[in-house]
Amino acid sequence: MAHIALGFDERQFPGITGLLRFRPETAEPLNALAEVLLRSEPHPLSRGERELIAAYVSGLNACTYCSCAHSAFAAAQLDDGMPLVDQVRADLDNAPISGKLRALLRIAAAVQQDGRMVTADLVDAARAEGASDVELHDTVLIAAAFCMFNRYVDGLDTFAPTDPDPYAMAARRIVKQGYRS
Amino acid sequence: MAHIALGFDERQFPGITGLLRFRPETAEPLNALAEVLLRSEPHPLSRGERELIAAYVSGLNACTYCSCAHSAFAAAQLDDGMPLVDQVRADLDNAPISGKLRALLRIAAAVQQDGRMVTADLVDAARAEGASDVELHDTVLIAAAFCMFNRYVDGLDTFAPTDPDPYAMAARRIVKQGYRS
Repeated sequence: MAHIALGFDERQFPGITGLLRFRPETAEPLNALAEVLLRSEPHPLSRGERELIAAYVSGLNACTYCSCAHSAFAAAQLDDGMPLVDQVRADLDNAPISGKLRALLRIAAAVQQDGRMVTADLVDAARAEGASDVELHDTVLIAAAFCMFNRYVDGLDTFAPTDPDPYAMAARRIVKQGYRS
Repeated sequence: MAHIALGFDERQFPGITGLLRFRPETAEPLNALAEVLLRSEPHPLSRGERELIAAYVSGLNACTYCSCAHSAFAAAQLDDGMPLVDQVRADLDNAPISGKLRALLRIAAAVQQDGRMVTADLVDAARAEGASDVELHDTVLIAAAFCMFNRYVDGLDTFAPTDPDPYAMAARRIVKQGYRS
């Protein structure tokens, strides 16, 4: 049971979805932030790559709901699907991704620990792989935003399904309609 | 120097203010989130109390810009001003605040570490002091949001003034015009 009374069956609205229904006033900017960070186009990082950053950070924060959800959202928008997401989350150094995305994910991992862990060396390594200022900015902000979303979802002790089906269903909705629907 | 080229003198736009100018697309939902969490009325917590939660978490994250800024914003909106803010940040257990606010700040401190650190005991203690579901929800989300803002500001290595004047000036602007101006 969540720490607060959401006013409905939390199994019907697991994780952040119940919190967004409970408090529409804060749901609006939270959904708008997710939409611009993870889905706005044109963008130098694909939607799948941005969801992969979200899934990776949520895994580092051990947030079950967010890591399952954003892994499903990334898998649905990457050619290599869930096997690639699983590889990145298990072994970033050897996962078959571009040097640029690997360097950006290393920055995201630093942000997850503490903003001050993002060193000039990490930034230079990403630039050497072709990362732009916007890619650096958005990677830091996506990683920081998931340090918020993960704490929000777990800090209120929301329900996280263990069955993959609800996450796959949510992925179909997000891919089609986005976060503001 | 910040990790990215902001395109202007960062001493003119320190901390998050330069990032918000650099990327207006993400500034919009970030400002909207700060406005609804820290300033929306009516609300069971005063603006000063909500800014105090932001300042407290920013201090725990050792984010110089955000802790100086939100301490100034809290001080400007609390009867006891900066001496109270300093007391809360230095010694929460003995600061002269309500039992409810103290219990909520303890929840905020747990969120700063990890959402999963918010125990039923911490929540029960806040409820015993009169905290409502909305107060619990908003405390968790304010604390979580500052785990984002702090990482955003420090992860991009923005400039933080050491002189108190720019923070006091920013406080006058925020108190008068809010975050969306």
